[in-house]
Amino acid sequence: MSVNEDFEQKCLNRFNKIKSVLCAGLDPAIEKFPPKFKDMQPAEAITSYFVEVADAVRDAALVSKPNIAFYEQYGAAGLAALHTIIDKLHDCDIPVVLDAKRGDIGNTAKAYAKAVFDDFGADAVTLSPYMGIDSLQPFFDYTDRGCFVLCRTSNKGSSDFQLLKVGDMYLYEAVAHKIIEWNKAYNHNIGAVVGATQIEELRKIAKLFSDNGYPPLLIPGVGTQGGSFDDVMAALRAVNYPLHKVFINSSSKLTYSHAADEDYLAGVLSEAKKFILQ
Amino acid sequence: MSVNEDFEQKCLNRFNKIKSVLCAGLDPAIEKFPPKFKDMQPAEAITSYFVEVADAVRDAALVSKPNIAFYEQYGAAGLAALHTIIDKLHDCDIPVVLDAKRGDIGNTAKAYAKAVFDDFGADAVTLSPYMGIDSLQPFFDYTDRGCFVLCRTSNKGSSDFQLLKVGDMYLYEAVAHKIIEWNKAYNHNIGAVVGATQIEELRKIAKLFSDNGYPPLLIPGVGTQGGSFDDVMAALRAVNYPLHKVFINSSSKLTYSHAADEDYLAGVLSEAKKFILQ
Repeated sequence: MSVNEDFEQKCLNRFNKIKSVLCAGLDPAIEKFPPKFKDMQPAEAITSYFVEVADAVRDAALVSKPNIAFYEQYGAAGLAALHTIIDKLHDCDIPVVLDAKRGDIGNTAKAYAKAVFDDFGADAVTLSPYMGIDSLQPFFDYTDRGCFVLCRTSNKGSSDFQLLKVGDMYLYEAVAHKIIEWNKAYNHNIGAVVGATQIEELRKIAKLFSDNGYPPLLIPGVGTQGGSFDDVMAALRAVNYPLHKVFINSSSKLTYSHAADEDYLAGVLSEAKKFILQ
Repeated sequence: MSVNEDFEQKCLNRFNKIKSVLCAGLDPAIEKFPPKFKDMQPAEAITSYFVEVADAVRDAALVSKPNIAFYEQYGAAGLAALHTIIDKLHDCDIPVVLDAKRGDIGNTAKAYAKAVFDDFGADAVTLSPYMGIDSLQPFFDYTDRGCFVLCRTSNKGSSDFQLLKVGDMYLYEAVAHKIIEWNKAYNHNIGAVVGATQIEELRKIAKLFSDNGYPPLLIPGVGTQGGSFDDVMAALRAVNYPLHKVFINSSSKLTYSHAADEDYLAGVLSEAKKFILQ
């Protein structure tokens, strides 16, 4: 798979083939790995298990999403493992959204973009909006890559700022409007991160986006965090969201809920299949 | 230097000795390095030059601030160079603020905090506030380390969100109030990033903070970005800011403005000395 093929096109081709909306979250927590990996060195355990997971979901995951934090915590060996896993995901034809939540001023953002897209070869990235457009544009300039800007996140503390009232809307809605503006002005691969745990807000964003060219949506919070897959799908279908632009993440539930099973990979696959549309 | 000594105490001891408010920004841009480093491999050039810079400013920089993005762009070798430089800075007794602008949900933030404080051994970090308290608390839990939360940044695009009106104040002021709250509740080493390019806003924050226990202030934007050192110092002195809690950053001007000189390190030191108080 060329990493220079347009992100949306790549996801469309893949969606047409496998009809899945799964974003497979690959966040190493070694203590939760299946027993056979637990005695390995961290980096070896991570690559060994997640290479198996990548194979298991190769026809069931629309995209994948390793969160770089979980690799960074193991230092250089952890980051080397991330490289190995990204290469494996590309071998499996699974686009990679690197969850990095970056955002910094111009030159620095340029360096981050280079790290994410050139060094790691990610197909898409997550970004933090607080510093504004010039902290994001160096990522947007890679027009063939996806950019998911934090909008309404799935954690409890998100209300500290995202629910502040800005005129007649919430801050997260002001961010959503900016995302629409950027999606039109810079790059059709610019979208939003909107958590499944706030279903009313997700509905509102999906409606707003449906009137504005359907920017792509990365949706964490289904599964362990409590969001409902059916509710999310209903919200999206209500506004005819193009489903190749929708990425519903499962991390812990996908990779760890069957870790104790003898055939843990069958467990992973059974979780993944829940995201394949009937 | 023990990395477990309290950040404020460490800065106070050092300030009393060297009377400097310089935060030495160490952001590799190899094309701007002195000629003798330009033919080296990137990682070798970075460590070679910045180890010399660390020695040059050992009695002139209150703290240092490598921005991790500039190292990440060179992959594993770049991050290995960052480790080497942090170790050297510690040998020189210069506390390290790792400029990483991190922020993510609970478990992920915990992994980032581990990477920043345990793996890199940084004394302080920069953080992005958009996701709220549970994305920051795992960093705050390292009570001996400094945490600088983005408040009013020095870039042009910062007005996209930071200047949105939230009730009778701007968003960045709402963030400043939260920083005060967190500084009181969790950890006296929690402070703000406020750019020198918005001097009126810096004045406002300094006044507000002066009435609320003086949280530490990291101030970028002096020098190449156009902020004035004298204006910043006047704003801080007007409210009797304890100067061991003030870190005025210089990156490009400090490390690159004399790169073409034969004695480039004398140039670095002359720039650094501008931040030593008379």
